[in-house]
Amino acid sequence: MTDSWAIGIDLGGTKIEGALIGSDGSLQHRIHYPTDVQGGAEAIIKQIILIVGEIQQNTGAPIKGIGIGIAGQIDNSSQLVRFAPNLKWRNLPLIEKLAPLIKKPIYMDNDVRVAARGEKNFGAGRACTNFICLYLGTGIGGGIVLNNALITGSNHTAGEFGHLTVQMNGPLCTCGNHGCLEAFSSGWAIAKNARDKNIHQNPDSPLFKQETLTAALVFQAANQRDPLALQIIGDAIEALTAGLISIVNAWNPQRLILGGGLLKGYAPYLAEIERGVRQRALPSACETLELLTSGCQGNGALLGAGVLVFESIHDKKC
Amino acid sequence: MTDSWAIGIDLGGTKIEGALIGSDGSLQHRIHYPTDVQGGAEAIIKQIILIVGEIQQNTGAPIKGIGIGIAGQIDNSSQLVRFAPNLKWRNLPLIEKLAPLIKKPIYMDNDVRVAARGEKNFGAGRACTNFICLYLGTGIGGGIVLNNALITGSNHTAGEFGHLTVQMNGPLCTCGNHGCLEAFSSGWAIAKNARDKNIHQNPDSPLFKQETLTAALVFQAANQRDPLALQIIGDAIEALTAGLISIVNAWNPQRLILGGGLLKGYAPYLAEIERGVRQRALPSACETLELLTSGCQGNGALLGAGVLVFESIHDKKC
Repeated sequence: MTDSWAIGIDLGGTKIEGALIGSDGSLQHRIHYPTDVQGGAEAIIKQIILIVGEIQQNTGAPIKGIGIGIAGQIDNSSQLVRFAPNLKWRNLPLIEKLAPLIKKPIYMDNDVRVAARGEKNFGAGRACTNFICLYLGTGIGGGIVLNNALITGSNHTAGEFGHLTVQMNGPLCTCGNHGCLEAFSSGWAIAKNARDKNIHQNPDSPLFKQETLTAALVFQAANQRDPLALQIIGDAIEALTAGLISIVNAWNPQRLILGGGLLKGYAPYLAEIERGVRQRALPSACETLELLTSGCQGNGALLGAGVLVFESIHDKKC
Repeated sequence: MTDSWAIGIDLGGTKIEGALIGSDGSLQHRIHYPTDVQGGAEAIIKQIILIVGEIQQNTGAPIKGIGIGIAGQIDNSSQLVRFAPNLKWRNLPLIEKLAPLIKKPIYMDNDVRVAARGEKNFGAGRACTNFICLYLGTGIGGGIVLNNALITGSNHTAGEFGHLTVQMNGPLCTCGNHGCLEAFSSGWAIAKNARDKNIHQNPDSPLFKQETLTAALVFQAANQRDPLALQIIGDAIEALTAGLISIVNAWNPQRLILGGGLLKGYAPYLAEIERGVRQRALPSACETLELLTSGCQGNGALLGAGVLVFESIHDKKC
């Protein structure tokens, strides 16, 4: 039963989304806008105010506060958005700027850690004190819960599993290093590899003359047995399996939860990936391991943004 | 100032070592024996009793208890040594067996986690809530302190950094997987690679006709500019750098502490390794990172075994 309400906001470089979140995990009045990155911080702050106002007006729920998940590096001790490249923000005191405009408590955290809170409270991380979420999207990131606490790292960047090295001297990654997991298995890498292999110039490919190659299209082409697409997705699966093995061996999580926009593409291969992990990771590290997919139906970040508020009310973490 | 005493024991597959440990980090009356693995559990238990008796008799210190670091998987909830391959133990109730013979509280944990306690209390992890120790020896293992707590994982095996995949489809590791960090940078791998490259059959090598090739000898030969040894050590350094980058990106520790018997061999290359990590890991993850070597002068496990006792007295962890 819902005994508290909050507004959850998921702020990404492409889209800003909000909803009314109940403390029972219910989600109502979901709205979104394209993020006005060009308009600068003030424009995005106006969008947040707009969303909060709309939800309050339309639902009339007595909200306890606003939680915001942000695609970036968040320092909650100084209440700064340290670095959010997709929003073009550096050291922005977002809460300080919002506070006079929203007469409710405001909380923020990194979007992936917020989504891990969503899993922990309402999804595949329920009743689990020790799990890792791996989000497969344009990039690859992770949220970590150990000893029942969210791990932020010494500098708010823990969980960058996309930058595990799986192939020394492998392909260049956007981070400047070589052979990162992300350089094989992320959305940008799968699309780039398809372009590099000129898949759209092959008359036999379902992607022939496709102007904009996306990872989703490459997955589709692989499902249609396009040889080049199968090779690219095969490499992505191999790297993802290696990355998961590294995570299992180093962290020994009880659950490994896969989520993100690319999960649909990877779905036909999940059994194969799990088989690879269980065959090749240390048997002791796999003994109690559960490999799961997100239980939040794509709402992990919104739900988790609500949890940011609820956990502050109850003064408990994660 | 020492206000409490404990006996610390470091139980490995080759050597069992003990000392009187003071709560100020002092270490006295260090003794060791070759571990009697062939004699089975009962023989090793006798060795523990012998060491405890000797130290008590010779020092007369009023010890609070015995702490034991064990090379294996320790389950402290069931008080079992789950699996210690080098001791040939499986599911051994060590404390239950020792308790009637030693009239003092007895505590145990995995040797690497015990050594991390040594660093935390008396070494390079002092006053740090968030660090990772990487021990480079015959194998490679790690101890993890996050949010001021030792991380054990869901199944007591967290910290197996030796089995981070750094090269998909790379050389076979003893764990059965391919391309693990340990398969390049551990003592066994460096010795094996030297044998595989027939370094001892090359009349120009300082290791010519060397019957037993060890990693220490290969490091020495590299220092003498032996080309094959330089190549093997070069690969080891490259893999170690990649592994450290993975650790920094995924965990964002404040300190990364290198220790273990192989550290002496790696010493001339540490500046190069640190440069590689700082150039190629995510800048945000490196911002506050300190790369250090063990501050326990090779006594981390013995000191940490003492800490096992002291922390139980003060009822605080790590």
